Amino acid sequence: MSHNIPKQQWAQVIEKTGGPVQYKQIPVQEPGPDEVLVNIKYSGVCHTDLHAVNGDWPLPTKLPLVGGHEGAGVVVAKGNLVKDIEIGDHAGVKWINGSCLACDFCQQSDEPLCAHALLSGYTVDGSFQQYCIAKAAHVARLHKDIPLDAVAPVLCAGITVYKGLKESGARPGQTVAIVGAGGGLGSLAQQYAKAMGLRIIAIDSGDEKKKMCLEQLGASAFVDFATSNNVVKDVQAATEDGLGPHAVILVAVNEKPFQQAAEYVRPRGTVICIGLPAGAYLKAPVFESVIKMVTIRGSYVGNRKDTSEALDFYRRGLIKAPFKVVGMSELQKVYDLMHKGQIAGRYVLDTSK
Amino acid sequence: MSHNIPKQQWAQVIEKTGGPVQYKQIPVQEPGPDEVLVNIKYSGVCHTDLHAVNGDWPLPTKLPLVGGHEGAGVVVAKGNLVKDIEIGDHAGVKWINGSCLACDFCQQSDEPLCAHALLSGYTVDGSFQQYCIAKAAHVARLHKDIPLDAVAPVLCAGITVYKGLKESGARPGQTVAIVGAGGGLGSLAQQYAKAMGLRIIAIDSGDEKKKMCLEQLGASAFVDFATSNNVVKDVQAATEDGLGPHAVILVAVNEKPFQQAAEYVRPRGTVICIGLPAGAYLKAPVFESVIKMVTIRGSYVGNRKDTSEALDFYRRGLIKAPFKVVGMSELQKVYDLMHKGQIAGRYVLDTSK
Amino acid sequence: MSHNIPKQQWAQVIEKTGGPVQYKQIPVQEPGPDEVLVNIKYSGVCHTDLHAVNGDWPLPTKLPLVGGHEGAGVVVAKGNLVKDIEIGDHAGVKWINGSCLACDFCQQSDEPLCAHALLSGYTVDGSFQQYCIAKAAHVARLHKDIPLDAVAPVLCAGITVYKGLKESGARPGQTVAIVGAGGGLGSLAQQYAKAMGLRIIAIDSGDEKKKMCLEQLGASAFVDFATSNNVVKDVQAATEDGLGPHAVILVAVNEKPFQQAAEYVRPRGTVICIGLPAGAYLKAPVFESVIKMVTIRGSYVGNRKDTSEALDFYRRGLIKAPFKVVGMSELQKVYDLMHKGQIAGRYVLDTSK
Amino acid sequence: MSHNIPKQQWAQVIEKTGGPVQYKQIPVQEPGPDEVLVNIKYSGVCHTDLHAVNGDWPLPTKLPLVGGHEGAGVVVAKGNLVKDIEIGDHAGVKWINGSCLACDFCQQSDEPLCAHALLSGYTVDGSFQQYCIAKAAHVARLHKDIPLDAVAPVLCAGITVYKGLKESGARPGQTVAIVGAGGGLGSLAQQYAKAMGLRIIAIDSGDEKKKMCLEQLGASAFVDFATSNNVVKDVQAATEDGLGPHAVILVAVNEKPFQQAAEYVRPRGTVICIGLPAGAYLKAPVFESVIKMVTIRGSYVGNRKDTSEALDFYRRGLIKAPFKVVGMSELQKVYDLMHKGQIAGRYVLDTSK
Repeated sequence: MSHNIPKQQWAQVIEKTGGPVQYKQIPVQEPGPDEVLVNIKYSGVCHTDLHAVNGDWPLPTKLPLVGGHEGAGVVVAKGNLVKDIEIGDHAGVKWINGSCLACDFCQQSDEPLCAHALLSGYTVDGSFQQYCIAKAAHVARLHKDIPLDAVAPVLCAGITVYKGLKESGARPGQTVAIVGAGGGLGSLAQQYAKAMGLRIIAIDSGDEKKKMCLEQLGASAFVDFATSNNVVKDVQAATEDGLGPHAVILVAVNEKPFQQAAEYVRPRGTVICIGLPAGAYLKAPVFESVIKMVTIRGSYVGNRKDTSEALDFYRRGLIKAPFKVVGMSELQKVYDLMHKGQIAGRYVLDTSK
Repeated sequence: MSHNIPKQQWAQVIEKTGGPVQYKQIPVQEPGPDEVLVNIKYSGVCHTDLHAVNGDWPLPTKLPLVGGHEGAGVVVAKGNLVKDIEIGDHAGVKWINGSCLACDFCQQSDEPLCAHALLSGYTVDGSFQQYCIAKAAHVARLHKDIPLDAVAPVLCAGITVYKGLKESGARPGQTVAIVGAGGGLGSLAQQYAKAMGLRIIAIDSGDEKKKMCLEQLGASAFVDFATSNNVVKDVQAATEDGLGPHAVILVAVNEKPFQQAAEYVRPRGTVICIGLPAGAYLKAPVFESVIKMVTIRGSYVGNRKDTSEALDFYRRGLIKAPFKVVGMSELQKVYDLMHKGQIAGRYVLDTSK
Repeated sequence: MSHNIPKQQWAQVIEKTGGPVQYKQIPVQEPGPDEVLVNIKYSGVCHTDLHAVNGDWPLPTKLPLVGGHEGAGVVVAKGNLVKDIEIGDHAGVKWINGSCLACDFCQQSDEPLCAHALLSGYTVDGSFQQYCIAKAAHVARLHKDIPLDAVAPVLCAGITVYKGLKESGARPGQTVAIVGAGGGLGSLAQQYAKAMGLRIIAIDSGDEKKKMCLEQLGASAFVDFATSNNVVKDVQAATEDGLGPHAVILVAVNEKPFQQAAEYVRPRGTVICIGLPAGAYLKAPVFESVIKMVTIRGSYVGNRKDTSEALDFYRRGLIKAPFKVVGMSELQKVYDLMHKGQIAGRYVLDTSK
Repeated sequence: MSHNIPKQQWAQVIEKTGGPVQYKQIPVQEPGPDEVLVNIKYSGVCHTDLHAVNGDWPLPTKLPLVGGHEGAGVVVAKGNLVKDIEIGDHAGVKWINGSCLACDFCQQSDEPLCAHALLSGYTVDGSFQQYCIAKAAHVARLHKDIPLDAVAPVLCAGITVYKGLKESGARPGQTVAIVGAGGGLGSLAQQYAKAMGLRIIAIDSGDEKKKMCLEQLGASAFVDFATSNNVVKDVQAATEDGLGPHAVILVAVNEKPFQQAAEYVRPRGTVICIGLPAGAYLKAPVFESVIKMVTIRGSYVGNRKDTSEALDFYRRGLIKAPFKVVGMSELQKVYDLMHKGQIAGRYVLDTSK
C-alpha cells in the first residue's frame, strides 16, 4: 500500500435506516488480494441511494452504510492477485461491486444475478467516500481521456439503459419507444438507441421535453401521454406501417405505462422493464399477449461486458449526460432536492470538498 | 377436378353464434389456383371450436360456419399453381388455413401473426366437413405412414405446445415446469419436452395425474398445486440447485398460475403463456421481475416449420395422444361433454359417419 | 391487363452463351395469377450479368435470355391472386424473382436457398427489357419517394452487403473489417455498417480509395494491402485492444484475402464471404481456427425481409450509391468497359432509350 | 493446510520436450488464495498429453512438466478467498486450469479464449501427480455420486464434444453427422447428441464400428467412408429429404473429411471442427459455400458452464465412456500404445499405484 494513502478520509455515512447522512471522517480500508482501492474523485447521486437511506426496498442494507455506486477515480492500491489493472489506472465503482465469479449465473456472464453479488453503497460501502474498495474483476476500466466527473452518471444510468436496449433485441433500423424519454434514464436511452442505429419514438409530456427529444436526443417522433387522446393509437401511428414499435423501453416511475406498452408494441415485439416504481405490477391481458406473441422482460443493471461497451460509446462522444458538480459535503441537500422532485440532470459529488 | 368428387357432402354447420351445430348436406367447393381440396377423413375437436360456436372471443367468426381445425385427409383436387403437393397425398388442415405470405410477419416466418391469416373453422370453413379447402402452402404434409385418426389432435395441440417449448429457449438438459401437465395440452407438452432432451416438473393436481406424469409422460417431479402448502417453494425445490426451472409452460385454463410462474421461475428464466383463460391477465411484480430478469412471452400456434417439426417427432413414435373416435354426426354430444368438463383425451370425428 | 401496355417492347437478348447481346423488339408477356408485370424504368448492370452472358458459373442460364436483376419500375398489371400490391405501385425486380414459398428453406425465410428459386436474368428473363414479369410476393416494394434510377443498384449490391453484415452477427459498437472497401460492394457495405452503428476498418489499396473510405464512407481506419508489410498485424493494430475486428466482410474478387481474414479476425469472430472469385477456395489452418473458435460463413443475397430493411436504410438517406445512366441500347458498351475493368460506380440503363 | 497432506508425492514428470516421462517423487505445492489443492485419484490420458511430450504444437509447454488434464479427486486444501467449494468436495482438474476472469473473453464466458488461460499439464503442472493445484473458480464440481475413475475421460473428451454440439446450433429433432464416430470423441459425441434429442449419421469405417454406432451409441444411419463410392451422396441420402445433415461434427484426425463436410452439409448448415490433425487446413469452394450459406466454425474446449452441463448429462446416466485403469507408474506404456495407435477407449491412471 502506497505511502500517500491517508489513514483517515471524509465520507458520507448513515448509521440507521432513515438517515440522516453524516459527513465525517472514517478509516481507509486495505484491499484484499483480489481487490483494488480506488481514490474516488467524483460520484454521481442516484435515486437508488435515496431508496437505500429510506429502506424503500425489500432488501436490507448494510449499516452503518457509505452510499454511492457511481464513483470514478484512480486506483491507488491493489491486492497481490490483481494483474490486469495497475496503480494509477482510472476505474469506476458501480452498483455491482463484486460477485462470486463461479456460480451458475456468473458462469453465464450474468454477474448481476449472482446470489453473492456485493452491491456498492448498499451491501458494501460505496463511493460517497474518498477511498473505496471494490473487487478488481468488477471495477469499470476507464480510459484516461474520459473525464471523471462527466462519466460518473454513465456508470449507473448509462449502463442500465444500454443493457435494456440490448435485451430488447431491437436491431439497427428498427423502432424503439422510450417511455419516460425526457428524464435522466430516458435521455441517455435515446442517445444510446441512436448510436445503435435504432429509430426512436419518445414518450413523455410537455413541450420542453418534446423539443429536447426531437431536436437534441435523436427521436423521430414524440407522443405526449398527458395530452394524447389515445396513447396506444398515437404510438402505433408513429411507426410507418402503423404496427407499432419493435421494442419498448420503460424507464418511467409510475405503473400505468407498464400496462399500456403491451398494447402498442408490435406483434412479436418486446417490452423491457427497467424502472422500478414502488409496489408496481406488470399487467397484460393474456389473450392479446398470446395472439400477438408479445415478450415482456425485466432488465436489471449491465454486466461487465455491457459496462465496457456502454463506456466505449460514451468515450467516442456519442453520449452526453448533463450534470452539476457539488461538494460531497452537500449530499443531504441533493437528497432534499431529489425528495422534492426538483432535480433535472444528475448531481455529481466532488469528494475533495 | 376429379370425377369422384361429389357435388354435395355432409358437414356440421352453425348458422348463428350460440349454435346449435346442424349436421346436414352442403355443396363441395372448388379450390382456387393456390389451393387444395382435402377429403377430410378425421377431425379432432378442440376447445376453440366450442369458443367459436359460443362467440367467446373478441374476434368474430364467419357465419354460417363449418368449424374444425384439426382435419386429416387426402388431397383430391388442387389449383394450377400448386406444384409441391399431389393428388393422393395426405394433408392436414390446421388453424392457420392460409396467410398472405408477403407481409412483414410472413416474411419472417411468423405466418400466425399475418393480419390476413385465414383461420380454419373460424374465419373460413374448417374440417367438420368431408371436403375442405385450404391454401396449398399451408396444409401440413403428412407422410403416408402416419395414421390419419391419431394425428388429428397433434395438428393443433401438438404443434402449439411444441412451439411453446421452442419459444421458451430451454436447451437440452435444462428444466421446464409444465402447468396443467395432466391435461390434453400438458400431456403432449411433456412428451415433446422429453423428446427435446428437457427435464420436466409437472404441475397439476390429483394422484392419478401424478402417476401418469411420472410414470408415462416423462416428468421427473410432480407438484400438486391443490395440496402443496407453497407451490413456489415446492417447484424450486424440485430443481437440483433450488433456483427453479429454466422455463415454465402455462397450459392451464385459470388465471392464478400465470401469476405464480414469474415467482418460481429461475432468474433469467422464461414463462411461456399458451392457455387462454377468458379475461385473464398476466401479472407480475415489477421489482422482482426486473431484479431476476424474468421473461414472460405469449406463444400462439406454430408456423409451418414448427408444424413440420412437430409432426416429425410424432411420426418417429415419440408422441402419443390418446383419442376416441366418434361419427361426425355426433359433434353436438362432444360439445355437451366438453361443456360439462367431462372429456379426458381428445375426441376425433370420423367424417364418414 | 391495361390497354396501355404494348404488345411489343425493346429488350436486350442473348441467343447463346457467349453473347452477343442484341437490342431488339420482343413480345410483352402476361402475368400469371400470382405475378405482376413491371414496367421497368431503370436497371442496374451487375458483374453477374456478364457472368451470365459468358457462362462463367456452374449453373446454366435460360436461353434465349433477357438479363438484368436490378430493375426498378411501375406495376402495370397483376394476376388475380395478388392483393397487397396495386397497379401504379413502384416495385423492384431483383435476383430472386420468385421461390416456391413452401419448401423447408422458404418456410424459414431463406428464400434464396429454395431449390426452385427463379433467378432474374438467369433462369427467367430479367430487367433488361421494358416489361418484366416477377412473382408478386417477391418484388421489392418501393416507396414513391425513392428515385427509380438511383435505387436500381441498391436492389442487388445494397441488399447483398446488408445481408452479409446481418449474418456477421456484429453488434452496434463492434468493429467490422471490409475487404475490398473501395469497390462498389465495399462502399455500400461501409455505409450500411455505419448506419448499423458499427465501426469500420476499410481494407483496399491506393490513396484515392483511402481518402474516400476515411472521409466519405465512415471508416475509422484504412489498411492498404498493397503497401502494408503485414496486413494481419496492421488490421489487428487498427482495433483498440489489438485483438482484431469482430467480423470481416469479404467483397474482394481475388482469393488471397479469403485466407488472411481468418488470421486477423478476433477470437470468436466471424468471416463473411460474399464475393465470388471464380474457382476460389476458402482456406484456413485447422489448429488456429479451432483454438480461436473462428466462424467462416458464406452469405448469398438477402431474403425479402432483408430487402425491405436495406431499402428502408436507403430511403432514409443513409446510403448513397454513385451511378451513371445510359440508354439500354448501350448495354454492350457497358459490358465492354466491365470486361476491361474500367468501371467505377454502377451503370444504370434507361429502358426508354 | 491439513496435517494429512504429505510434503512429497509421486508424479510423472518430463524434463525436456521429447520426453521421456519419469515416475518420481516431487514436492506438494500449496494453493494460493484463489486456488484449491486437489488430491487426484484418477487421471485420464489424452492424445494431447502425448502431443505435449513431443512438442507437436506451435505453443511451447512449461518445463519440467507434469502432464495430465483429466484429473478427478478430492479437495484437500484451499486458499482463503475460496468460498463456494469445501475441503472434502470432489473436483475435476481439466484443460483450462484457470483464466483471468476479467478480460473481454472471460467477461463473455469464453474463458478458453483468455490470453492468460492456464493449461493443465501444458503451461502449468497437471493431473499426473497425486496433488494438483487449480484455480478454484475453474475446477469442475463433481457430485459425490459420480465415480472418480469413470468420469476422468469425460472431463476432457466429453466436455469438448458437448461444446461442439452446442456450437453447431443443431436443435432437437435435427440431424447431425459425426465424422470419426467410432473413435473416443466420436462415441461420446453420439451419446451426447442422442441425449440432446438429435438424430445421428455416424461416419467411420468397418463393420465393428458400424454395429457399435447403430446398436449402442444411438446413430440412425452409418456411412462407411472406406467403402462408399460417394460419401457426399451417401451422407445426404441418409437424411429423409436428401438435403443433408443440419450440422457436421468433425472429430476425425485426418484432413480429407474437413473438405468433404462443406459439400454434404445442408444449406444453412454448420460444420464444426474439433479434431486437430497436425498441419491440416479447412478448405471449401467459395462459390458453393456462399450459395449454400454454409457456416464453418472451430470449437475448442468447453467453458465452465459447458463443463457443468456436460457432467450433468453424465451423472444422469446418459453417457458411458469405456476405460481401462492402470497404475500411474505405467504412463509410458500407455504412451507407447498410443503412439502405435493401439488404444481403444480411454486409459485412466490410478495415482496411488
